[in-house]
Amino acid sequence: MPGETFHERLRAAWRHQQSLLCVGIDPELSRLPVELQEHAEPFLAFGKAIVDATAPHVCAFKPQAAHFAAKGFEDQLAALIEYIHHQYPGIPVILDAKRGDVGGTAICYAQEAFERYAADAVTVNPYLGYDSIAPYLAYQNRGVIVLCRTSNPHSDWLQKGRVEETPLYLAVARQVAEWDEHQQCMLVTGATYPEELRRVRDAVEDMPLLVPGVGAQGGDIERVISAGKDQEGAGMVISSSRGIIFASSDSDFAQRAADAAQRTKAEINKARGVITG
Amino acid sequence: MPGETFHERLRAAWRHQQSLLCVGIDPELSRLPVELQEHAEPFLAFGKAIVDATAPHVCAFKPQAAHFAAKGFEDQLAALIEYIHHQYPGIPVILDAKRGDVGGTAICYAQEAFERYAADAVTVNPYLGYDSIAPYLAYQNRGVIVLCRTSNPHSDWLQKGRVEETPLYLAVARQVAEWDEHQQCMLVTGATYPEELRRVRDAVEDMPLLVPGVGAQGGDIERVISAGKDQEGAGMVISSSRGIIFASSDSDFAQRAADAAQRTKAEINKARGVITG
Repeated sequence: MPGETFHERLRAAWRHQQSLLCVGIDPELSRLPVELQEHAEPFLAFGKAIVDATAPHVCAFKPQAAHFAAKGFEDQLAALIEYIHHQYPGIPVILDAKRGDVGGTAICYAQEAFERYAADAVTVNPYLGYDSIAPYLAYQNRGVIVLCRTSNPHSDWLQKGRVEETPLYLAVARQVAEWDEHQQCMLVTGATYPEELRRVRDAVEDMPLLVPGVGAQGGDIERVISAGKDQEGAGMVISSSRGIIFASSDSDFAQRAADAAQRTKAEINKARGVITG
Repeated sequence: MPGETFHERLRAAWRHQQSLLCVGIDPELSRLPVELQEHAEPFLAFGKAIVDATAPHVCAFKPQAAHFAAKGFEDQLAALIEYIHHQYPGIPVILDAKRGDVGGTAICYAQEAFERYAADAVTVNPYLGYDSIAPYLAYQNRGVIVLCRTSNPHSDWLQKGRVEETPLYLAVARQVAEWDEHQQCMLVTGATYPEELRRVRDAVEDMPLLVPGVGAQGGDIERVISAGKDQEGAGMVISSSRGIIFASSDSDFAQRAADAAQRTKAEINKARGVITG
């Protein structure tokens, strides 16, 4: 990774993998196959199997910190990320942590994400402003993914508020574009609001977008591609978690996850006019 | 705690402890006394000493999750909170984590805070709206402390934006007051903006406020008390971290922390017309 910006590494993954799909790894003990529930390191074993099964179809993996933290499985999260780096060095790992704090505390969260877990990028919350983003930007070749227009139903009340005629989420998008000196920033923009995704794309030119909300949440892939693609027909990391990792809770879970990932990748590629297997 | 709301327990602590001071526990390895840096569990040993030294002067303790997470010291955080509950059962523990996520992930973060760490309250971020707060509110006798007007200098750009003539932080305050069916919500309102603290107080009647930013950040205690007190001259949990826990980095650190806590408590009490030792 030395010398390359996060955006450069992400674009290389888009090209090499021929995919915009990101698989989110949000394990829940009760939804794992029974034989894995009794494993000494259940989330690591599950995560490795999902990674191996879906790696041919993704441009990124996105493990979710809370799912590991609720169980005290931080060591398994660190080991899983290390495994991805070792086995699939061209596929960036996004730590989905949505941290937001300032000063020495934000420095600690940046250390947690980039040093302890060695993530390529981390999701962060803009509510505290630049003080809360700067400690991540200081890692100039890592990615900083700022919440902009989230996919959940009750995000309107704040994110669609108008600040001097501009909706708040667009103000966030423009501000992050100004902060992005080292091609390291992205924006979270939910698939469930494609018109707003389009406005964000227009506001930030070719900044990559992290797009959750396809699959279980109902975001429409064709509308997402039309609204959010960049000039090269890429520009997005389209994340799906439960629809892929929990495609089956039986011993065929890895094969079923691979099938679901391949299907989703193909659907995305069809919508952007790219033919893949 | 059964049957009591979080607000009731907090008010009991205000009365019994005769203090509005909250000591924030944000350990940094390089700032610990040398003999503790080589301890097998340095943050636990340091935290216990700070807790024992300052307990007579506080209404709450506020350990900061990032400082433990950056070092992989989660077990020490859990043990420290368990120690506080066991030794000082009347003093609530606020886990400062500033989490913000939705759905199953927010449920995991709530489990992390309230089950794994057994915190009495947790700080959360409002950017994702009600979906991100509801899983915490479901623990009806625990506290949910929502970021409102944070104390850091660059929070203006978003938090002071006007949403239909109302500054965003006030819209957040009013919204949280509506969510607070079980007397469990608080708002983070920085000591560095006393006029806005007053507007928040006016908007939310007697909801307790978590007030960081006195001490190192320069918030003025008299102005804070005047702006933020409730009808009983309480209503706030005034948090100070570095000014107390790092009052000394020598072997006298605990005594110096106790002195600083007592001094700060007395200054707060003087400003609210309460005489304490």
